[in-house]
Amino acid sequence: MREFDLIEKYFNWKNLESDILGVGDDCALISIDAHQQIATSVDTLIEDVHFPKNTSPKDIAYKALAVNLSDLAAMGATPKYFTLALTLPEFNEYWLQEFSGSLKSLSSQYNIALVGGDTTKGKLSITINATGVVSQNTAMLRSGAQVGDYIFVSNTLGDAALAWHQLQQGKEPSKGLLQQFNRPQPQVELGKVLVDIANSCIDISDGLEQDLSHILNSSNVGARINISDLPLSDELITYIENSYDWCLPLSGGDDYELCFTVSQENIKKVEALEKTLNIRLTAIGIVTKELGLERLGMFKDECSSYQHF
Amino acid sequence: MREFDLIEKYFNWKNLESDILGVGDDCALISIDAHQQIATSVDTLIEDVHFPKNTSPKDIAYKALAVNLSDLAAMGATPKYFTLALTLPEFNEYWLQEFSGSLKSLSSQYNIALVGGDTTKGKLSITINATGVVSQNTAMLRSGAQVGDYIFVSNTLGDAALAWHQLQQGKEPSKGLLQQFNRPQPQVELGKVLVDIANSCIDISDGLEQDLSHILNSSNVGARINISDLPLSDELITYIENSYDWCLPLSGGDDYELCFTVSQENIKKVEALEKTLNIRLTAIGIVTKELGLERLGMFKDECSSYQHF
Repeated sequence: MREFDLIEKYFNWKNLESDILGVGDDCALISIDAHQQIATSVDTLIEDVHFPKNTSPKDIAYKALAVNLSDLAAMGATPKYFTLALTLPEFNEYWLQEFSGSLKSLSSQYNIALVGGDTTKGKLSITINATGVVSQNTAMLRSGAQVGDYIFVSNTLGDAALAWHQLQQGKEPSKGLLQQFNRPQPQVELGKVLVDIANSCIDISDGLEQDLSHILNSSNVGARINISDLPLSDELITYIENSYDWCLPLSGGDDYELCFTVSQENIKKVEALEKTLNIRLTAIGIVTKELGLERLGMFKDECSSYQHF
Repeated sequence: MREFDLIEKYFNWKNLESDILGVGDDCALISIDAHQQIATSVDTLIEDVHFPKNTSPKDIAYKALAVNLSDLAAMGATPKYFTLALTLPEFNEYWLQEFSGSLKSLSSQYNIALVGGDTTKGKLSITINATGVVSQNTAMLRSGAQVGDYIFVSNTLGDAALAWHQLQQGKEPSKGLLQQFNRPQPQVELGKVLVDIANSCIDISDGLEQDLSHILNSSNVGARINISDLPLSDELITYIENSYDWCLPLSGGDDYELCFTVSQENIKKVEALEKTLNIRLTAIGIVTKELGLERLGMFKDECSSYQHF
């Protein structure tokens, strides 16, 4: 069973107040006054599940906060504060120094304050709940995609998945791939400007196909994407040339890039953003009335997306 | 090393914004507009650490939310919403139904909405981050105790610790003790009215001595409490008569009652509260200028409080 099915089934209660968008988007949205909404996101990272046992505390701390910043980015929210629930197998001063130093560094960079936490003893696990603010009715939802919208993704896809693939085979990934795996850059600045441009947005944490499908299902639309248009790093191009395996960019998780849809009249604005933010933004397809996700140029039929269970 | 020392040392960064009260109180407080502050609290419960392996999913769900509601109560905040990070060893429909049903029931009772979550695979662990609101500058802090204040506690102390003590000895605790251990009642209504009456407040999760000491240290004062004034259930009285062991009510954790300090002129208001809220509120001592915690009538010198490490 997939994680979101699990959550949908057991925890998507209908007693939520009308000013709250609950379980099921990148963040929950809560109205706090006439002008602002709070966007809040929670993610847990567990050793051996989300990162290998020998991962450095610096990389763990970075990723634990970054994945939540990425969720805020997908809504277009400005990060404000976060809480940390840290489960540690033992008291290890070196580990804590490295972990807290890295967390502090990333939080300073994004101007988000650590406001509270809980420390418990057990198998290494990190849960961060990050909260940001967004002006009323401007947050990008998964449900906003319109037929005819162009589908964009930021930077390249599949690099983190290739690093994970190589690590599992006992190979040492390149510095670039490891960087993408351990230090994905949350697209907070991009998200903040997209609120005026995009109709819908999601961050690609579980793989492009699965995450784009969330947009399609929420918006009750379909999409046609061109496999040959997927933005790939040189290393991923080499990998695919040797393996004919398109699954890494299509369904490999951990990219933490943004996938968003934009009406035709706003395409020029996206092109302008590429320059002002110095970021690669690639149109990979179009939103269609026909439901389902059509992949033009795909040889194999199926890639299995990341499954939480 | 104690949990709060750990948190203080590694995570109490000084780069917090001036409108944020960070790590170190029951909740963090964040100003969101001119009128309101957000109070947010996070707690993790782990199997075999915070509850025994055979605890029912209903009891686990209840406690995971209740301990956070108790933190909101200690600040005088009104609960609004919470997020849930749930780590499960396997997909178990019965377990999830029981867990989510109990969580829904308690959240309805306190009018707090589940807004988001994350589900991961691993050893059973529940992290809840609960958020409430409180009017600007009204939240009760640990740092507000004044010399001459009376120290109060709600209901009785040590019942949950006695249940835990008996469980560890393989005995079956009475229904009343188990109720106090598995279903502690968060004192949210009491907290909300105390904002106008009390100078400081904390919830007793790690034991009276340790939690009262947080108030004393934060307020730079001391206290003198009368052991014979501690409010005890009949079962705890029997236990102490047989064991001469005052440690359960003094340093046993998991009471989730409120400990608060009140100036002499407000004592009458506390007495009135006992009637309007139908709750037992007992004066157990007084705040002193001399630092440290003096325990009048104590035979043994030391009780070891709950240690997270």
